[in-house]
Amino acid sequence: MQRYFVPNENWAGEHVILTDDDFHHVVRVMRFKEGDKIICNHPEGQASICEITQVENNRVIAMILENLEGSAELPVNVTIAQGLPKGDKMDLIIQKGTELGASSFIPFQADRSVVLWDSKKMEKKLVRYSKIAKEASEQSHRNKIPSIHPAMQISELLEESSQYELKIFPYEEEAKGKQSPSLGDILQKAEPGQKIFVCIGPEGGFSSEEAEKLIQQGFHPVRLGPRILRTETAALYTLASISYHLEELRCQ
Amino acid sequence: MQRYFVPNENWAGEHVILTDDDFHHVVRVMRFKEGDKIICNHPEGQASICEITQVENNRVIAMILENLEGSAELPVNVTIAQGLPKGDKMDLIIQKGTELGASSFIPFQADRSVVLWDSKKMEKKLVRYSKIAKEASEQSHRNKIPSIHPAMQISELLEESSQYELKIFPYEEEAKGKQSPSLGDILQKAEPGQKIFVCIGPEGGFSSEEAEKLIQQGFHPVRLGPRILRTETAALYTLASISYHLEELRCQ
Repeated sequence: MQRYFVPNENWAGEHVILTDDDFHHVVRVMRFKEGDKIICNHPEGQASICEITQVENNRVIAMILENLEGSAELPVNVTIAQGLPKGDKMDLIIQKGTELGASSFIPFQADRSVVLWDSKKMEKKLVRYSKIAKEASEQSHRNKIPSIHPAMQISELLEESSQYELKIFPYEEEAKGKQSPSLGDILQKAEPGQKIFVCIGPEGGFSSEEAEKLIQQGFHPVRLGPRILRTETAALYTLASISYHLEELRCQ
Repeated sequence: MQRYFVPNENWAGEHVILTDDDFHHVVRVMRFKEGDKIICNHPEGQASICEITQVENNRVIAMILENLEGSAELPVNVTIAQGLPKGDKMDLIIQKGTELGASSFIPFQADRSVVLWDSKKMEKKLVRYSKIAKEASEQSHRNKIPSIHPAMQISELLEESSQYELKIFPYEEEAKGKQSPSLGDILQKAEPGQKIFVCIGPEGGFSSEEAEKLIQQGFHPVRLGPRILRTETAALYTLASISYHLEELRCQ
């Protein structure tokens, strides 16, 4: 059944109102009519089966039939801080990262980021990223849309990370030897409800100064297998491993 | 150090000869000169540090200085059979799948594949895919380049799979309930050197007839977390989980 994330203000008692892009999708793309059923997601996570009762000029009204139980959310909150990559790689990271269950994304200006985050373009980019996250959440049947933060400097990032229980950063040097605890050792300690902060370098990786700052702040350097992954693959490997460990290996 | 996969016939005693695209890359892109060092990979997996001793008009000769020990290959052989996806998604699957350690890729014509594999274009596509696999192998420091097979029908695929020890297929129906052994249960049984066959449906997933045939042939249906992944994300999740389980969780 098609899913729509409906903002808080469009929920009224037993009814849900779909407007703007969702209205367009319901009426023009899917060509739904009165009597058709859809799933509406509240921003807080509740999903409900709804029946379309009225199609108007610029809005669709649906009635809640049944609240769905269960959740497709990861049992932990994972934030992906991504050193600004080249080209449209951030699009891929947000789309795939959302499918794989990330809670939020923070782009950051790393020492070796080739691109500079242009504050004029920031607003436009954030709108674009949010749209990608919303569509990927609907497609993957998530209960929540991940949040996208404006780009940060590494100092702000380190401050932000202080509220997190587990902090890791994939570090290429780790792929060459194995001194530190492995990603497996670290995920063994993860408990449901915890917050995990994953910090990923841009194409050239982290500078040694950045790596040092991260370690001082309590981040564990990890390797993601012995192969060298591209920056956009690192987030996906980490999220897939977290899902595998907590949803497919540990639980039953 | 820059890596090059050099075909068997270009190894002669203590010397390695780089031609064609590799010649171009060494001389024009990297602008290496006599005395510079590179890593040459033999197709069988051995990697050696070599010193460039001669740059000629259309070839570069390098001398083997030292054979490298260790391997960045997954401890198991993983074949990704991918139901033909739309657009250029196969490029992404091969690039990322190579980074994540796949041994081979087999595109196949699934019931719900929207595109038809055009045999006229097949040769051109295979050249393109092989190039992507070679470049991704060099970039990720692998010892071997995965092989790319021409597209198969599902009947050929099932025959091909008979030599494999572990066979799985992500099945959307599994994401809704959990009756079968989980991916974790299955990977617990994986032993180094084994061959794993992963069969992934196209955008619309497997038809129930296909799923039935796969199960009859000994394939286990698995879910990849409770979220619904796009077809190109399924291969990456599976490979990342195999790497995580065998390289980062089990070993040390």
